[in-house]
Amino acid sequence: MSVLANKDKRTEARVNEVIASVPVLRQEWRERATRRLNSLTKPPGSLGRLEEIAARIMAIREEERPDCSKKVIFTLAADHGVTEEGVSAYPKAVTRQMVLNFLSGGAAINVLCRHFGIDVVIVDIGVEGGTDELEGLVKEKVAQGTKNMACGPAMSAEEMYAALEVGIDLARHAADNGSKLIGTGEMGIGNTTAASAITAVLTGRPVSDVTGRGTGVDDAGLRRKVQAIERAIAFNRPDPSDPLEVLRKVGGLEIAGLVGLILSAAARRIPVVVDGFISSAAAALACGLQPRIRHFLFAAHRSSELGHSALLEFIGQAPLLDLEMRLGEGTGAALCMTLIEAAAKLMNEMATFSSAGVSEAVG
Amino acid sequence: MSVLANKDKRTEARVNEVIASVPVLRQEWRERATRRLNSLTKPPGSLGRLEEIAARIMAIREEERPDCSKKVIFTLAADHGVTEEGVSAYPKAVTRQMVLNFLSGGAAINVLCRHFGIDVVIVDIGVEGGTDELEGLVKEKVAQGTKNMACGPAMSAEEMYAALEVGIDLARHAADNGSKLIGTGEMGIGNTTAASAITAVLTGRPVSDVTGRGTGVDDAGLRRKVQAIERAIAFNRPDPSDPLEVLRKVGGLEIAGLVGLILSAAARRIPVVVDGFISSAAAALACGLQPRIRHFLFAAHRSSELGHSALLEFIGQAPLLDLEMRLGEGTGAALCMTLIEAAAKLMNEMATFSSAGVSEAVG
Repeated sequence: MSVLANKDKRTEARVNEVIASVPVLRQEWRERATRRLNSLTKPPGSLGRLEEIAARIMAIREEERPDCSKKVIFTLAADHGVTEEGVSAYPKAVTRQMVLNFLSGGAAINVLCRHFGIDVVIVDIGVEGGTDELEGLVKEKVAQGTKNMACGPAMSAEEMYAALEVGIDLARHAADNGSKLIGTGEMGIGNTTAASAITAVLTGRPVSDVTGRGTGVDDAGLRRKVQAIERAIAFNRPDPSDPLEVLRKVGGLEIAGLVGLILSAAARRIPVVVDGFISSAAAALACGLQPRIRHFLFAAHRSSELGHSALLEFIGQAPLLDLEMRLGEGTGAALCMTLIEAAAKLMNEMATFSSAGVSEAVG
Repeated sequence: MSVLANKDKRTEARVNEVIASVPVLRQEWRERATRRLNSLTKPPGSLGRLEEIAARIMAIREEERPDCSKKVIFTLAADHGVTEEGVSAYPKAVTRQMVLNFLSGGAAINVLCRHFGIDVVIVDIGVEGGTDELEGLVKEKVAQGTKNMACGPAMSAEEMYAALEVGIDLARHAADNGSKLIGTGEMGIGNTTAASAITAVLTGRPVSDVTGRGTGVDDAGLRRKVQAIERAIAFNRPDPSDPLEVLRKVGGLEIAGLVGLILSAAARRIPVVVDGFISSAAAALACGLQPRIRHFLFAAHRSSELGHSALLEFIGQAPLLDLEMRLGEGTGAALCMTLIEAAAKLMNEMATFSSAGVSEAVG
């Protein structure tokens, strides 16, 4: 870290401070939640995983009636130098085009967030090309995309810390604005390549076992993608035990932003709904930096992208949904957030056996 | 059927008319939906099962932009004579107590329907005891619960037809009121016993393989439950190829009502979201009466009640959710209906590649 300038040393210190401030969940709050759930007019445990969700939300918030109604998804957009290797079915220009689509409300994430009453915040953290003129965009561009990881590190340490800090600040602002539930989202042509590289490094599995077709690359493209990742790992030799080194060498600016966002949300006791494959790569790195992070995460869904299951297993998360989705943007998180909100409302609003005059189980 | 009085013969004719009027879904509407879905700004197929849902909704409705915003769940309540055999963890009085809880808005189904913007209609189709004084209840009591199926048929033919007709009329009114999506729900102490009996008869599996703990009966209670079902089947000898005979002999009044509701909804091109185990037993009987029914069904979730998976397999439905729930009331349907509404909105509201100026896949 001696390469860091003073500003980056300050950022590094701030990142470490956020990591250290992630709280320990207290057993007494879980027990309080269980007592409440067992008093409600339903057979004990009959709401299944919704009960576990509600109990964990109570333990995270340390509130008797945790409110999850104010929900926000951050969709971080960035480009990837590795697209030079022909790893994607779509041209790189689609990242910026989709940002425009997000801003005009026509993308899947917009439709879902309108339906579920979720705020969606679109962030340029590394999109190639100018975005100064775009209204409604959060402009935090750290660089014009990453460099090609097949030929060297994806990012400099300066870029990585800057991107981490963007995410940290996004969660801080969200907390200050009263958000109670944060979802992760991303857009970046080439970013399943980065997420597969991270997965291969962290889990130690062969690249071909954790590399899928992303947006729908053909057989030749899939071979190029696997080879590009293998070259990236061979060249960069990231240390699996050093999450920030993995992130810097084979990650992406939006992934770095999400790592910061997740850490910072947890530090402020805000549950994080992790979308799909790319978001889970960020979550895995965040868990590497702070194992307590996993208690604050809700894995939204099992993506049909090859590699996601390995990553979910690695971070010890059982996804709530399995709808064979593989779109990203935060779409899986959007679906899941309303279920989490519903779980909290069940705990908060249901009548108890005694208040409703319902007989309890016999024997 | 010679035992039927004239009124019941008219009802039988009406049931047969509803069964015959369930439409065939046309392939051209599915293809139209697929073309629309592939024009939207996402990689083809990347919304996974939401795309199949949206396409099926379009084919059911035969509308270019099917609207699912007006949603209703019917929670049919009835008692079961088989509770005499000690098959439940809760006393029979809980059926009526829970009806009161539904009416005052304190049950899980109320909380979920408020959250998701679903109307919930509580129907007394066979609750033991008086309900005349209860406001907000749909009063269609056919009988004071079923008779004990371990000692004879659960219902008379008259009762069964009356209950079927209640369900038929509920869906008709819902259609007239503009409902676009119907969910099934039920409440009835002892009704997992009836649903397990139906499952055993229809699938031919051993009773002990498809009989679970319901609301949470203990080991001794589970043995009594299995024995009661075995006696009911041995005594009544229902013909597995005659769904109405199975329904009459080992079913329940709320299950009969749901059979009518499902048939009638499909006849009016309204998709039906099937809740859990008891609702799936009704759906299986409806599929037996009219195989085209399955195209109108969406199985909400896989209940953790033993026997549900066998039933889902029997009716060829892959559930959307698997959250280890086993509460009934329509709670699984409530969670699922918002996902179906979201799927339709995605198809209706997303921008196309051409309208948004997004490049399509290369190669």
